[in-house]
Amino acid sequence: MTAKAKATDPKKNPSEGGLSKKKTWIGQKVLRREDHRLLTGAATFAGDMSLSGQLHMRIVRSSQAHASILSVDVAEAEKLPGVRMVITSEHTRHLGSVLLEELGYHEIYEDIEDFSHPLLAVDKVQYVGQPVVAVLATDPYIAEDAAELVSIEYDPLPVILDPEAALDGDINLFPGRGNEGARITKAYGDTDKAFAEAVHVIKHKYVTNRHSGVPMETRSVVVQPDPARDILFIWGTVHVHDNRRIIAKMLGMPEINVRMKHVELGGNFGVKGGVYPENVIAAWAARELGVPIKWTEDRIEHMVSTSHAREMVHRFELALDGDGKILAMRDEIFHNHGAYFRQAEPLVSDITAGIVFGPYRIPAYDVTLHAVFTNKTPVGAYRGPGRYETTFARERVFDLAADQVGISTTEFRRRNLLTASDLPWTPGLDIVHEPYHFDSGDVLKHFGEALEAAGWSEWIAESERWRAEGRNVGVGVGILMDKAGLGLFETGGVEVSPAGRVTVTSGASSVGQGIETVLAQIVAEELQLAPDEIDVVHSDTELIPDGVGSWSSRSTVLAGGAARKAALAVVDKARRLASEMLEVDPDDLELVSGAFKVKGADKQLSLYEIAASRDPYTARLENDEPGLAADAVYVNNLMNYPYGVTLVQIELDPGTGGHEILRFFTSTEAGKVINPLTTRGQIIGAAVQGIGGALYEEFLYEEDGQPITTSFMDYLLPGAQEMPNVEYFVTEDAKSTDNPFGAKGLGEVGIIAVGAAVAAAVDDAIADGMHTDRLPIKPEHIFTRLQGLDKEAR
Amino acid sequence: MTAKAKATDPKKNPSEGGLSKKKTWIGQKVLRREDHRLLTGAATFAGDMSLSGQLHMRIVRSSQAHASILSVDVAEAEKLPGVRMVITSEHTRHLGSVLLEELGYHEIYEDIEDFSHPLLAVDKVQYVGQPVVAVLATDPYIAEDAAELVSIEYDPLPVILDPEAALDGDINLFPGRGNEGARITKAYGDTDKAFAEAVHVIKHKYVTNRHSGVPMETRSVVVQPDPARDILFIWGTVHVHDNRRIIAKMLGMPEINVRMKHVELGGNFGVKGGVYPENVIAAWAARELGVPIKWTEDRIEHMVSTSHAREMVHRFELALDGDGKILAMRDEIFHNHGAYFRQAEPLVSDITAGIVFGPYRIPAYDVTLHAVFTNKTPVGAYRGPGRYETTFARERVFDLAADQVGISTTEFRRRNLLTASDLPWTPGLDIVHEPYHFDSGDVLKHFGEALEAAGWSEWIAESERWRAEGRNVGVGVGILMDKAGLGLFETGGVEVSPAGRVTVTSGASSVGQGIETVLAQIVAEELQLAPDEIDVVHSDTELIPDGVGSWSSRSTVLAGGAARKAALAVVDKARRLASEMLEVDPDDLELVSGAFKVKGADKQLSLYEIAASRDPYTARLENDEPGLAADAVYVNNLMNYPYGVTLVQIELDPGTGGHEILRFFTSTEAGKVINPLTTRGQIIGAAVQGIGGALYEEFLYEEDGQPITTSFMDYLLPGAQEMPNVEYFVTEDAKSTDNPFGAKGLGEVGIIAVGAAVAAAVDDAIADGMHTDRLPIKPEHIFTRLQGLDKEAR
Repeated sequence: MTAKAKATDPKKNPSEGGLSKKKTWIGQKVLRREDHRLLTGAATFAGDMSLSGQLHMRIVRSSQAHASILSVDVAEAEKLPGVRMVITSEHTRHLGSVLLEELGYHEIYEDIEDFSHPLLAVDKVQYVGQPVVAVLATDPYIAEDAAELVSIEYDPLPVILDPEAALDGDINLFPGRGNEGARITKAYGDTDKAFAEAVHVIKHKYVTNRHSGVPMETRSVVVQPDPARDILFIWGTVHVHDNRRIIAKMLGMPEINVRMKHVELGGNFGVKGGVYPENVIAAWAARELGVPIKWTEDRIEHMVSTSHAREMVHRFELALDGDGKILAMRDEIFHNHGAYFRQAEPLVSDITAGIVFGPYRIPAYDVTLHAVFTNKTPVGAYRGPGRYETTFARERVFDLAADQVGISTTEFRRRNLLTASDLPWTPGLDIVHEPYHFDSGDVLKHFGEALEAAGWSEWIAESERWRAEGRNVGVGVGILMDKAGLGLFETGGVEVSPAGRVTVTSGASSVGQGIETVLAQIVAEELQLAPDEIDVVHSDTELIPDGVGSWSSRSTVLAGGAARKAALAVVDKARRLASEMLEVDPDDLELVSGAFKVKGADKQLSLYEIAASRDPYTARLENDEPGLAADAVYVNNLMNYPYGVTLVQIELDPGTGGHEILRFFTSTEAGKVINPLTTRGQIIGAAVQGIGGALYEEFLYEEDGQPITTSFMDYLLPGAQEMPNVEYFVTEDAKSTDNPFGAKGLGEVGIIAVGAAVAAAVDDAIADGMHTDRLPIKPEHIFTRLQGLDKEAR
Repeated sequence: MTAKAKATDPKKNPSEGGLSKKKTWIGQKVLRREDHRLLTGAATFAGDMSLSGQLHMRIVRSSQAHASILSVDVAEAEKLPGVRMVITSEHTRHLGSVLLEELGYHEIYEDIEDFSHPLLAVDKVQYVGQPVVAVLATDPYIAEDAAELVSIEYDPLPVILDPEAALDGDINLFPGRGNEGARITKAYGDTDKAFAEAVHVIKHKYVTNRHSGVPMETRSVVVQPDPARDILFIWGTVHVHDNRRIIAKMLGMPEINVRMKHVELGGNFGVKGGVYPENVIAAWAARELGVPIKWTEDRIEHMVSTSHAREMVHRFELALDGDGKILAMRDEIFHNHGAYFRQAEPLVSDITAGIVFGPYRIPAYDVTLHAVFTNKTPVGAYRGPGRYETTFARERVFDLAADQVGISTTEFRRRNLLTASDLPWTPGLDIVHEPYHFDSGDVLKHFGEALEAAGWSEWIAESERWRAEGRNVGVGVGILMDKAGLGLFETGGVEVSPAGRVTVTSGASSVGQGIETVLAQIVAEELQLAPDEIDVVHSDTELIPDGVGSWSSRSTVLAGGAARKAALAVVDKARRLASEMLEVDPDDLELVSGAFKVKGADKQLSLYEIAASRDPYTARLENDEPGLAADAVYVNNLMNYPYGVTLVQIELDPGTGGHEILRFFTSTEAGKVINPLTTRGQIIGAAVQGIGGALYEEFLYEEDGQPITTSFMDYLLPGAQEMPNVEYFVTEDAKSTDNPFGAKGLGEVGIIAVGAAVAAAVDDAIADGMHTDRLPIKPEHIFTRLQGLDKEAR
């Protein structure tokens, strides 16, 4: 993989302050500190844990997509030696369903709790995989055997799988509420007038495939109760503070009595976020029985019960003038949420309806999203949620439009992309209660630079040359806009230890993205120490009483902002103390290599020495806090908007329907890169998953709602052999004005336009005049088109 | 047991503020919340813990009182299947000895670290029981078997046991430093002149017996390492913050990486305090091997390796005028510290030298204490350290003096006790760097009231009557002065949960004394909630980053002060928020039953409702902390001085030398009692231990330093059958002016004068003109005196 990042001279960075000797860590290629423990096997995952006297939990899941439960017979299961308890909804129904409230967003939905996920199914089931019974046994194998002895009698109900049909038919998952969890409309401008006056009107329907994140580690939770004090210690959740809040609330406990503890997490990608019913059941059981409970899902369970994502139908309409300038955009979106709303995930629907326009100048906009329930696994946020899907639809309809106007796809985009003169772009709609506010940049300029950096004209020429030689080669472009940050607040703390180390505490969570490394850099920058001297601690509600967590590409900006704020407070305090101890004016001190040096003199005090002077047991501190430490809360409700381009050159094999991605290029405007290595990792990882979603991955169902793709034999993931060389191009031209780094969140940006670009490249390679409007593009589709067998567009 | 506490009308308490409806919890008989879990077996002790993969540690202890180590052969031990590691001083010597520094007190001692306790003996041993080797095995029995296979070759050295002889002889435990760890002199006034002018001069030598606290639970430590993050979790130490500090420093780790976790503690009485070498060895081993380590001492180990206490020689001199008024007091004290200084315990010597005068008007004072090393187990603080010993010597010499002046022992005291007009009594000496400042009270008045309450004249008449009948009945009086509090600071936090509970976090430790109950009362008082709604959390350095801990009868004042301060901050914040939410002036709100009520209206908001409104995830909080919580640090460097009287009536059995305590009465001026039930528990518990020290308990050694008393067969403890009915009398006439409650620490007061009063009663009962100047008084002493066989006074 090769990088074509624009060189940035750190000395020219205006944020660096005036100290001539200041060493900068922000922007440096600092190696990921996470990797050593992960690669050497030293990291401890929940599955590695074994607590004395622990019981293993096994979930009995629904075999039916939609059915009334006539009876649940657990007698045989209870008889199996080693079984300690068989939990049914009789035990848990008083706890209610998984709370959806809070996070500040439930106001979007009326009585959202009506749609929340039961802990264990009460009276009926709505998808295959839904938890019905939980077995606790002394051994995981006994638990699994006992689960098979549970006999559940179902009365099948008709099944609805299609999100559009779900709004019309008689099958009603939520009597009294229907199958529409919400209808969200976001609009501005006079779309009716624009469409009436349009020279070109393009309408097309697009469908994105149900797929999701499949982390190497499946979900796993360990709960240790302390019955004498009514405390639960819980390991294994991604968003510790959110899980603490919901579990405490559901069990009627003070939050401080639910103590989420750190353990390594084997990936997240969004799908491990939120609060799963299994977490609550395990917590309830541990409290009820007073013994530790361990639960680890197997891969089959993961495929049917961990959140799915991405399944959407877009009915797109575009109004253009004669030059191909967009006058208005309409989209009706059917967002298939599956059987229930997951905790905290309905906000993806709200975001989706607000971002269809992407980084384009759209004068009038009218998008309605239907959050629809069907008899499939519930969905959650998966890397780039709503963005991947809408970008596929929008970029594809733009390709159609370019064709209709008679200009190239790139030229069509050039005519409509936002430029510096359009910014800040505040079209007048809200996303999750915050006004859309695209603060800085020049998308058109970036687009041009990206095409230049990629050598786009050469790609086209080469493809045409090869096509002329009979090879099926094509290119495609997709332009993306992310929204990152999703504010609220984040917490951070910095503590200098006389032992010669600094500890950063953070409300963020480390899920493989490299945030530990990035936070160490940010604090190293302010303390003028090496990142190696800095430990990063997170995901522990005892050490970190408040926090929000890592999702929505928010950690660098939010957690970084909090850590920086705490570091600055530490520096301020240290400067004051050094001034007192050295008896010099604070202004005569400069921070060099972690020590306050008296300018022009040979006297200095390191931060470690200053910390040592603040031992509360040796120093008599009347009116000052002991130690050298500070905590901070960083509040930033604004999102930031990284944008970029994804270019794909693909060759198709007419004999097999196979493909090879010959070139893959992705770019982003980053505002400010904190670490080029973690940026690279994020971009490449996103590319892999984007390619998976475009060409491989799909959760398929039989007509009766039985899932077909419950193993990696059926659910295809791209492997290393399928991966192209990823060229990437990062610009730092448009710092975000809304955070101290100028950074834009880069955790998801690389995935967003992959589906769109791949589809365009496939159509270009086949050149049969058909238009791909559905993902994934599988070998059978390519084969039939190349063989001329399929005259219906996909 | 019967109480004769003076009734206190809570309504008259001037500290209660002006709210007419205020309910008071301070002073109420709230049942101990600690008892349920302890009595039902629900509490988890370190010994109950079992961590996956844990190794059990067994210490090989010195069999010699003083010897060079010629060789240590661990080969056979290492061969035993199940043995994972055999640790010798080769592994641990680089860590140094257990750090004594810090706590603000080491300035009293020059180069105090010269005398600190090695982790494992290096080259030589200085007492029987000293750790030499540590064995780690998969099973505690294998560890014990392997320990017996360790072969240590010793070259015995001459042994010194007597603290006076240790300063004169040739046997030198610390070459270059000698056997005197410190010589501390505290003096004021012109003692030479007073003695020159005295009408009566009394000189006598007193010896108190080596004994100590023997908690039901022996010491136990469990360490769980997290190698990937270099973190240690440790359960089982009493003073978690102090242990964290010392262990982190010795292992070169940031304090935050050493995480002391809560577990139940089966008693402390001081002897479990400080940092023991075994704690550090277990921590080092867990970090070295990356597996959990569990260590639990057995009772035999406890008797030789947990701190001893109390062994002192006092050479007392008293100068009196013709009326028996004291002109001056001299004392030369030989404080037998055993083989090394324990971490943080040398301050007992400093305190001892500064409190010999007790609650008396002593115009001139000259006390020198020698902190002496011998080949016995090191000593530590044990309930009433220094006070029990000095009170025995002082009260006994006062009995001699009364006899010489020809007045009653009570009259002698009346002429010399401090009265209100003497206070504040600031004679001009420091204890542990703080000026002695006896703030409030009237000891003479309290003495009179106590004698009256006890019916003292009836005790005397009755004893005389019975003696006339040939029974050996006598009475004795001892007057005591404690010093409680030993300042620095303490931390506290109060958090109101919307779940309807309040959590108090405290830097104190719960060691059976009832501090959880007391803190709940203190916070209940301020929040106007029931104590049952309040949880108390302590002894966890993750939840409570700073704290000092429970020792020196400091918790009610210091931890209570911090909790109260935090509670007041919560009330202030809640009042402000309620005022905003209810749109009324803060002054129009009154706190009634945990809710802010609008005066004269039917509107109110409970603290729980206010807390619920502050959820950081639903409320948008820009400039205000989320939740309803506050943390506080309470600083109070002043000690407080409870005083009281202990009266004993004893009958001796001339046939067996046995005794029966017919009456036992103890009084104290408490300033303010927070909970009469915990006060009662402290007084009765102290009486038991005081009687044990006076009549039963003594660690005895052979001449070669071999301990004789290594089990409860040899080391006698009083049981329930030996216990008298304890009458107690508590006055609240003299609030301490130095803390918000007016409270004085009552954890130790009940033990202090027991030895003195019992000895006086025994002498009175025998009436042979001899003078008991040594404890304990055992049946053989009583028998020989009653049989006229012993003409030498004990």
